[in-house]
Amino acid sequence: MSDDRPSLAIVGGTGALGSGLATRWAAAGYPVILGSRSAEKAEAAAREIAAANGAPAVRGLDNAAAAQAGDIVVVAVPFSNHDAVLDEIETAVAGKIVIDATVPLIPPKVATVQLPPHGSVAQATQRRLGDGVRVVSAFQNVAAHKLREGTAIDCDVLVCGNAKEARDAVIALIEAIGLRGIDAGPIANSVAAEALTSILIGINRRYKADGAGLRITGLAGS
Amino acid sequence: MSDDRPSLAIVGGTGALGSGLATRWAAAGYPVILGSRSAEKAEAAAREIAAANGAPAVRGLDNAAAAQAGDIVVVAVPFSNHDAVLDEIETAVAGKIVIDATVPLIPPKVATVQLPPHGSVAQATQRRLGDGVRVVSAFQNVAAHKLREGTAIDCDVLVCGNAKEARDAVIALIEAIGLRGIDAGPIANSVAAEALTSILIGINRRYKADGAGLRITGLAGS
Repeated sequence: MSDDRPSLAIVGGTGALGSGLATRWAAAGYPVILGSRSAEKAEAAAREIAAANGAPAVRGLDNAAAAQAGDIVVVAVPFSNHDAVLDEIETAVAGKIVIDATVPLIPPKVATVQLPPHGSVAQATQRRLGDGVRVVSAFQNVAAHKLREGTAIDCDVLVCGNAKEARDAVIALIEAIGLRGIDAGPIANSVAAEALTSILIGINRRYKADGAGLRITGLAGS
Repeated sequence: MSDDRPSLAIVGGTGALGSGLATRWAAAGYPVILGSRSAEKAEAAAREIAAANGAPAVRGLDNAAAAQAGDIVVVAVPFSNHDAVLDEIETAVAGKIVIDATVPLIPPKVATVQLPPHGSVAQATQRRLGDGVRVVSAFQNVAAHKLREGTAIDCDVLVCGNAKEARDAVIALIEAIGLRGIDAGPIANSVAAEALTSILIGINRRYKADGAGLRITGLAGS
């Protein structure tokens, strides 16, 4: 058992991004709890991921119970469900790090940036959950299907949050699944990562690319 | 004389970014007109760039006259001067492509994204100048001193604008100075490029980098 690894609750864990992250973290030896509106659906998805990874510690619960059970909670839900899901997990995440991976895509124009009027999703999450919760935004720009497939991903993960130790903890989780996390500063900066997703979707169409990503250049050793 | 090359007016052409772009385009054979609040300052800067590049066609005028003289007009001014400069050039840019390179940095917290309440600078420019002007945003993420020095730049240029032919024209101008322009979609998407600048400034500090940039990955041939 990975005693010093935090357990990771993934709210929206049956979706494309959530199950991709769960697959990678499970393979890396982290205890993973999938959350879903339906506990049965979460259990079924957890069994599938556990089987595919040689039975590591993956289980499924409803979103609130998953958030309660995890040391760190990841929110990986469609934008349209975001506020309702925060209602479900608000009590359970007190004092924890919450990784918000939500992108404000509004169909049908998902290749056009349509930010919430008050700024970014992650900023709104931080405001909503209060200073007792350390909200960190990440994973908006990674192609979900590549996470699930386990192929190499040519994309950095921008990591924003107001607490440096929380950003560092999330960067460690990102490195554990073979990606590079970049410390991108305070939660106000999440707007760049959230907006970039629409640009990448448009680039995929315009350039006929399969999962365009981004890399930060100019760092020592990169 | 480069007969089929458009002349390029650079409003704010004596600043770091403006003079860097002027140097590169002049070296690539484009007629360049530097604009400044002071015509004398613009003329002096133009003489300096012309001398450094073997006397190509570079001249200096006040901002309004420069905008009038250019086929395509580049706005490369500090955020605090942006609205006043639009006042100066508004009449002169009717019917033209305006490349807005302005980044909404608000000192002292330039590593924190602080977008205008209505969204992005470039969107505001498009709204302000009206549909008769094709506003294209670009160059927010390129290190100005590297443009001026003529060194290789490991950074893509995100190009946003509502008119595809205007985006394509700007991408051609970017390629002419040795950079890769990426078609990043409508002007609403400019918010990502504008916000990224603060992230890159923070990365330069945190990672002790000299001009961090970004690359789009996953495109054919890249």
